[in-house]
Amino acid sequence: MKHNFGAGPCILPSSVMQQAADAVLNWNDSGLSILEVSHRSPEFEEVVLKTQLLVRELLNVPKNYSVLCLQGGASTQFSMIPMNFLQGKTIASYLDTGYFAQKAIKEARLFGDVEIVGSSRDKDYAYIPDHYHVQHASAYLHVTSNNTIEGTEIFDFHDTGVPLICDMSSDIFSRKINVRDFDLIYAGAQKNMGPAGMTLVIVKNDLLDSVKHQVPSMSDYRIYRDNQSMFNTPPVFAIYVSMLNLLWLKNEGGVEGIEIQNKKKAQMLYAEIDRNSLFVGNANLAHRSRMNVTFRMRNPEIESDFLAFASERGMVGIKGYRTVGGFRASLYNALPLHSVKALVKVMQEFEALQTQ
Amino acid sequence: MKHNFGAGPCILPSSVMQQAADAVLNWNDSGLSILEVSHRSPEFEEVVLKTQLLVRELLNVPKNYSVLCLQGGASTQFSMIPMNFLQGKTIASYLDTGYFAQKAIKEARLFGDVEIVGSSRDKDYAYIPDHYHVQHASAYLHVTSNNTIEGTEIFDFHDTGVPLICDMSSDIFSRKINVRDFDLIYAGAQKNMGPAGMTLVIVKNDLLDSVKHQVPSMSDYRIYRDNQSMFNTPPVFAIYVSMLNLLWLKNEGGVEGIEIQNKKKAQMLYAEIDRNSLFVGNANLAHRSRMNVTFRMRNPEIESDFLAFASERGMVGIKGYRTVGGFRASLYNALPLHSVKALVKVMQEFEALQTQ
Repeated sequence: MKHNFGAGPCILPSSVMQQAADAVLNWNDSGLSILEVSHRSPEFEEVVLKTQLLVRELLNVPKNYSVLCLQGGASTQFSMIPMNFLQGKTIASYLDTGYFAQKAIKEARLFGDVEIVGSSRDKDYAYIPDHYHVQHASAYLHVTSNNTIEGTEIFDFHDTGVPLICDMSSDIFSRKINVRDFDLIYAGAQKNMGPAGMTLVIVKNDLLDSVKHQVPSMSDYRIYRDNQSMFNTPPVFAIYVSMLNLLWLKNEGGVEGIEIQNKKKAQMLYAEIDRNSLFVGNANLAHRSRMNVTFRMRNPEIESDFLAFASERGMVGIKGYRTVGGFRASLYNALPLHSVKALVKVMQEFEALQTQ
Repeated sequence: MKHNFGAGPCILPSSVMQQAADAVLNWNDSGLSILEVSHRSPEFEEVVLKTQLLVRELLNVPKNYSVLCLQGGASTQFSMIPMNFLQGKTIASYLDTGYFAQKAIKEARLFGDVEIVGSSRDKDYAYIPDHYHVQHASAYLHVTSNNTIEGTEIFDFHDTGVPLICDMSSDIFSRKINVRDFDLIYAGAQKNMGPAGMTLVIVKNDLLDSVKHQVPSMSDYRIYRDNQSMFNTPPVFAIYVSMLNLLWLKNEGGVEGIEIQNKKKAQMLYAEIDRNSLFVGNANLAHRSRMNVTFRMRNPEIESDFLAFASERGMVGIKGYRTVGGFRASLYNALPLHSVKALVKVMQEFEALQTQ
């Protein structure tokens, strides 16, 4: 039995996997595979529409926002955002909370001036800067709601008076959010939405309508909005599996229901990290991510022993990112509680062996 | 029994569909789905490498070319190409052979001057312009080897003294090409390579090394080359199925073997179009595409009758593109000869009914 704690692409529900496999062979009894259907067929247009409606329903997206399906992952958004919203403006503001925030900052600098309003670099990104000021002239403030590599999460989004843009790649659909707090939300699908290969964007129409310059078509959010995300051939399979996964989430009680389960999973694992004499958590208590739990051993010399011990017992994907080291257990929506229990048991068994 | 003549996403071999479905449930007996494996796992890194090696082997790609896996389809290439190669130069040259060539031209104009060296617009793009001159100062000449909508194909690529860039989305892997004739080849995967969601680029390293300006990372070919196409999370499933499909092609005798079959299929269908009193082909004889056979009825009033007649007999995806009308039968690699025979039979039956 494998327990997949991978950081993404990550575990999806087994029922979704089964439906996806069935559709590869014979989609909805059409006699065709989902891989060979035209993206312009009414049947697939309905899939795109249904996916967008599920996003709206699950996150309670207001009517004055558009829901778009793109490609290229969050990394493509890192440049699309300044290409659309920074060009012609004075400055854009970024909160530096780690590896992916820095990547976003790097791309923005190609398009204009960037101010870093806060950074937790001084403490290896173990916390979320809380006090920061954004200048009035800024085109937008960009934040990363969950820092996949460092294991921190923003639980309090400030209203700074400028449009708020948020990379929610690794915690979207994991907890209730108020979409009205944001002007643009984006997320690579491959955590809580679906397989790798599609990117979700939720954007306030006012923000799109404020763009007056020309942008290359495939980098222009307005083109996706005006063409129902079907300007060109979309990633058909990734969208279809996302739809299946969002349907699963709806049946699990939606975002409200999964948030309760996610809190339970995170509390269980953090409690063991805090209790176990061998381990220590990386992030400040107040900013501990519920999606990516990062921790290390008090004695780094036995980390590879623990990794081997855990791997032998079915734990997959718990090695920490190379720049951080230690361990990272990702507790995305589809990871069952019994996998967390299994990991806790392994940590306890290893402790018993070490201290006997 | 369905016969899928869809223009893309299109039919893939049934053995590939079966392997893809199996991998969604349990990939290589790993106990994990291909949808949940880390793109940084050695097992998946091997998939990317193997896909690139198969491309090299099947197309005989010289060592001084890079093989890259991207996202965003050919439409993204329409802007990436001028972003990388036109900026800072005087002009780029384009051959206007139809709908997708025009789309490429439109995006290039955002980045610099464009000269149209030849156009078949005067005859509804029913032929390939043959005599054209490219100015020496041009950054590159862009051509579309197969015009999916109009049903024409380039069989003779001129050496004009400037780098040659070719959109091969709908005929790559269908016939032998000499990669050395080109400086950059690109193709959306969803015809002869794999499912929608990945894009192949084959590019001469000299051309990449000539780029001296900064380009946003996800639009920078050099970034893909320097990171083995894994700068960010790639479209895992689309790459995996592409690998399966290229393995299938290799077992079918490679590009040489499939070209023989493709010629046979195209000859059979064109022969019926020319013989049948009801139908007429769209494209000039010399430029008839072997991938997308476009035709119409001498009496347009009975086209919808034929469409219904053919649909009842299992023919899928033969309606012509809305701007062209009539019919289009796409004969991609995985379409079996018996499907062409079935379509020919339907055309003959319909003729018999009409003329009885």
